[in-house]
Amino acid sequence: MFRPSALAVIGASEKQGKVGRVVLENILASGYKGTVFPVNPSYAEVFSLPCFPSVSELPEAPELAIVIIPAAAVQGVVEECGARGVKAAVIISAGFKESGREGYRREMELRQVAEGLGIEVLGPNCLGIADTSTPLNATFATKAPLPGKVAFMSQSGALCTAVLGWSEENHLGFSRFISLGNKMDLNESDLLVALEQDANTSVIAAYLEGVADGERFLDVTARVSRAKPVIIFKAGVTQAGAKAVSSHTGSLAGSENAYIAAFHKCGALRADTVEGLFMLAQGFSSQPPPSGPRVCVVTNAGGPGIITSDALERAGLSLASLSEETAKKLREGLPEAASVYNPVDVLGDASAERYRLAIEHALADRGVDSMIVILTPQAMTKASDTARAVAECAGGASKTVFAVFMGGQEVKEAEDILREAGIPNFSFPEEAVSTLRVMKSYTDFLSRPRQTWVRFDVDKGKVRDVFARVREQQRNELVEVEAREILEAYGLPVARTLMATNLEECIKAGREIGYPVVIKIASPQILHKTDVGGVVVGIENTDKLISAYEQVTANARKFFPRADIWGVLVQEMLPPSRELILGMNRDSQFGPLLMTGLGGVYVEVLKDVSFRLAPVSEEDVMDMLRELKSYWLLRGTRGEAPADIDAVIESVLRISQLVTDFPEINELDINPLRVLEDGDGCLAADARIVLEE
Amino acid sequence: MFRPSALAVIGASEKQGKVGRVVLENILASGYKGTVFPVNPSYAEVFSLPCFPSVSELPEAPELAIVIIPAAAVQGVVEECGARGVKAAVIISAGFKESGREGYRREMELRQVAEGLGIEVLGPNCLGIADTSTPLNATFATKAPLPGKVAFMSQSGALCTAVLGWSEENHLGFSRFISLGNKMDLNESDLLVALEQDANTSVIAAYLEGVADGERFLDVTARVSRAKPVIIFKAGVTQAGAKAVSSHTGSLAGSENAYIAAFHKCGALRADTVEGLFMLAQGFSSQPPPSGPRVCVVTNAGGPGIITSDALERAGLSLASLSEETAKKLREGLPEAASVYNPVDVLGDASAERYRLAIEHALADRGVDSMIVILTPQAMTKASDTARAVAECAGGASKTVFAVFMGGQEVKEAEDILREAGIPNFSFPEEAVSTLRVMKSYTDFLSRPRQTWVRFDVDKGKVRDVFARVREQQRNELVEVEAREILEAYGLPVARTLMATNLEECIKAGREIGYPVVIKIASPQILHKTDVGGVVVGIENTDKLISAYEQVTANARKFFPRADIWGVLVQEMLPPSRELILGMNRDSQFGPLLMTGLGGVYVEVLKDVSFRLAPVSEEDVMDMLRELKSYWLLRGTRGEAPADIDAVIESVLRISQLVTDFPEINELDINPLRVLEDGDGCLAADARIVLEE
Repeated sequence: MFRPSALAVIGASEKQGKVGRVVLENILASGYKGTVFPVNPSYAEVFSLPCFPSVSELPEAPELAIVIIPAAAVQGVVEECGARGVKAAVIISAGFKESGREGYRREMELRQVAEGLGIEVLGPNCLGIADTSTPLNATFATKAPLPGKVAFMSQSGALCTAVLGWSEENHLGFSRFISLGNKMDLNESDLLVALEQDANTSVIAAYLEGVADGERFLDVTARVSRAKPVIIFKAGVTQAGAKAVSSHTGSLAGSENAYIAAFHKCGALRADTVEGLFMLAQGFSSQPPPSGPRVCVVTNAGGPGIITSDALERAGLSLASLSEETAKKLREGLPEAASVYNPVDVLGDASAERYRLAIEHALADRGVDSMIVILTPQAMTKASDTARAVAECAGGASKTVFAVFMGGQEVKEAEDILREAGIPNFSFPEEAVSTLRVMKSYTDFLSRPRQTWVRFDVDKGKVRDVFARVREQQRNELVEVEAREILEAYGLPVARTLMATNLEECIKAGREIGYPVVIKIASPQILHKTDVGGVVVGIENTDKLISAYEQVTANARKFFPRADIWGVLVQEMLPPSRELILGMNRDSQFGPLLMTGLGGVYVEVLKDVSFRLAPVSEEDVMDMLRELKSYWLLRGTRGEAPADIDAVIESVLRISQLVTDFPEINELDINPLRVLEDGDGCLAADARIVLEE
Repeated sequence: MFRPSALAVIGASEKQGKVGRVVLENILASGYKGTVFPVNPSYAEVFSLPCFPSVSELPEAPELAIVIIPAAAVQGVVEECGARGVKAAVIISAGFKESGREGYRREMELRQVAEGLGIEVLGPNCLGIADTSTPLNATFATKAPLPGKVAFMSQSGALCTAVLGWSEENHLGFSRFISLGNKMDLNESDLLVALEQDANTSVIAAYLEGVADGERFLDVTARVSRAKPVIIFKAGVTQAGAKAVSSHTGSLAGSENAYIAAFHKCGALRADTVEGLFMLAQGFSSQPPPSGPRVCVVTNAGGPGIITSDALERAGLSLASLSEETAKKLREGLPEAASVYNPVDVLGDASAERYRLAIEHALADRGVDSMIVILTPQAMTKASDTARAVAECAGGASKTVFAVFMGGQEVKEAEDILREAGIPNFSFPEEAVSTLRVMKSYTDFLSRPRQTWVRFDVDKGKVRDVFARVREQQRNELVEVEAREILEAYGLPVARTLMATNLEECIKAGREIGYPVVIKIASPQILHKTDVGGVVVGIENTDKLISAYEQVTANARKFFPRADIWGVLVQEMLPPSRELILGMNRDSQFGPLLMTGLGGVYVEVLKDVSFRLAPVSEEDVMDMLRELKSYWLLRGTRGEAPADIDAVIESVLRISQLVTDFPEINELDINPLRVLEDGDGCLAADARIVLEE
């Protein structure tokens, strides 16, 4: 598609204001070396090229068809293309899914036709494609992309045109420029595969509003990310998921957390703003990602140095501690008033040579992973000479070097010198720091070990049996006792519990388990038991058990007169413990989204939760727990003994295996998971499982 | 200082590379209409102006002296100025506090001299000042500020030069441009007062690394903010406070929270980045702040509309709901495929007239407070015509209108048209939204009622007595029983407690209070009592009380063998309740910083806390509580009854009065404050108070 030896422009035209004219002009202006066949029954010649009335009358089969004709005629043309042996088409024409019901129907039909003919389609409703190394610019944008190493794909055609204007101003070059349009056939995953193989592309940047096939996206991106950075600006982040959910995990999950977890899993890098997307593209295409978090700042002014330090701390990066040896060399070479500690302040009157000395020594320091060189134009400042010095020093080092030459017009020439040397210049320190932060996270991804998943020995048959029983009863929500069976089958420790269908059984169960005990109402209709007085804790003897039994059953009948009451669960009373929540909500795009968090009734208030997509490794779970503020509760605060974190990790891994093995589980909550002191394990005290309907 | 009829340039020079030359050149080039007296013993004439050997030999006393001579000579010159009757000086010379110990001593001496002579000094170590309406540019920057309505002051001279370059590129004009330097005499508060009165200044922007006098800054800014917006970029935000603290509140407060609370109190608007500072200045100087949160987006492309909606939601602003009437008018005027709901999509082929129609109707809608007009350059787009249409529509409306015309060079002319019309254009939607967000918060500040503070009837004498007793004993930390006396004197409900110095008294106290009770060790050395087993709860009878007494005293002796053990506190056992923390930490800059938060042992882990500077009003306290995630716990979640929020508010107000009345209180923690159900009040269960040393 990107390097066709011949292409047809179906709907080519010389008429002013016609998209067919702009596309053809762009193709010709781009220096495309293959054969161009204009196709249009109204002309014999277009821009001095022979024009053909139809695809079937072309002298040879082109490798690519660019289609720019009214929507209603597209299907016919695609059929002709198929008959003529064309294998790929870029359909620029609008009037499909984006334009309402009629267009939707048209697109569905077109898809079937194209599929049947084996034609790959980009679009419809797109701006076209460009490849600056072929070279080929088959878009109807008024600007052509500059050549470069960044491949950009966008789900919004309008954004493409805006980006072309912006990139010209900021001298950002592209290898390929792709407008995805309606993604009828080819989607972001297909393009990622194509871009992975393109030797001219070293960075992939994308604007996406959604992902066509979540699982394939995860697989493809995980592979491509290892070869080149994939940076994505995801729009529509805040839209709430449409599906109603009843679990804590479900209500906290949301599509935003699913995307964060998905990007984390596959190594896609998230840009927070459109501008950030391109700063990252610029950073990655010109500098190596930093090997660690330690940044050295060299500046000729204190203020911007402080701003940079603040930004580094906020970004989770650190100011490198320079070695005593480096400090000594700096002290020898710099004036007395200079600061030889980080930020290195070379003073307002710094010459290019003074900058050079500071940069050389600091870059040579083993404790420095990356550098930000700041310049503000002052009386003695030679911005361009300094830019040359920065370029020379950075060229010899394998470390990330960014420049923040502030001051607009006064540093324009210096900016050009820096750009030539592949050193991105940022107008403000914060931009350099946020770019560095994401580049550092790419290093983290690359150094992440390929994940291995523990498989525990479990009783899958038992789970199948329980699910079958639930289905038989036309239910999709499991009652607590069933959920407990599932957990036990997967080796999760559960609090000792007996089902009692009447008072007599209840008294027997109390004796068998041993006081103190807890009782809970058991009914398929009552899911949030504490809310209706369906739980009594700390029951110390038979007398109290009897009155508790009467109380919870009376409450259940009062609040749920039509509920099917099976009896009560009698459970061992656990020692004081820390409470977590473990859960899973199946995301419609990316599958099983696991959650850990601070448990108990406060989970939805405090929202101290973390997410990952299953399956997860031991390291993943450890990261999940570390992301929680309440991790410090597990570690033991203020003299408290640490909790059994290993037991929590194993529980999450077992849940991960369960929800991976059984895709029919839609929602799962263990709340609370009671975590005892280190060595004493943890116990699921209450569990809910909901199957897909 | 900004409009002198005559000024002296002390250290004026014609020598290339001399700061004295640059300053004089800038003054002459700026079109200054007053008399300029160059002063320099080496010259008889400088740039054709007669040059005087010293200030004492000037024919008249200038109103302002600009001093650009070596540091060592500055004091002598200031003395001469004083003798000659000069009342104000801008000292550009460096070599003072910023350059080490010798410079520090020099600055202290200079300050005394200037004070004695009654000379106001800006600097030393600054870039100078400029006023574009005088006009006067007495800086040594290589660029002059463009005229405009924004006053800018900066604690970093280097940033000034960078900003001048940046502002030229972005066409931002200044009324006054002030480099604060070392703030030896005049500081940000003095300048705020001066800028308040300057009719040419409509917005004040500042880069500050610190504030010279916190209380004065609060007073001045609170007043100035009501007249014009004061926007501050505060650098050095993450530096930890130097003072060691022992309370929860103290450890959570930090200088960053004090600055946030201070800015909130006085209405200063916080810019997160340097770029943001100037975007805000641009926004405020050209558009009215939005009267509410409801934003209408008009766009010719879906993608940027989604990006804007996302950003609005994140910023806490909302997409306006257009009225049915507006929707009807839009439906009539726009093509069928257009979206007449917000974002209003006028489609890719939108003409200027189509934009005009959409903007006019939407701006007329009462449900719309502000508007963002987005344009991406597409085939039919007429950016400049559209800019004119936007300008015309916005001119007639009193609502905030921002433009996001994307696409760099292609929209340059349109940008000029927008700027002429006073409509800021942003390169990316996120920038428009974050500017709008802060402008909206200014509206909120202006509409905030002037605060009134309740004064409760309290027993100040009692507090004085307790403090005197503590001081007598050479202590500055109160023990619990003393802290309780203080709270009681200020009308805070405290849990019923009796002090027992021996077992016999303890048994008596148990009977008097009535079981169940709690006992706690009482010792001036033991502050975190639970950590050392110094607390036993739920004691149900005398037997258990005896063993608990023995246990806590034994623990105390074991862990604190040298502690002075006064006995135990016997306290009523409170019913189950929600636990808050109330506290105060006295900030060295801004005074009493109040804190509310989720209480109990988890306060430092979950950090669910909010801050305000005392004194606070009832509304302030309500806001503090609403900022807490755990506010929903107070409101009652999942069937739980609401807690007594009114009682909490009253408690905070009483604490506010206490710490305002007694500036010697450095730290105060009530943790937990037990909050009972609505109507039942709240009780301080434990309290700590630390006085200044």
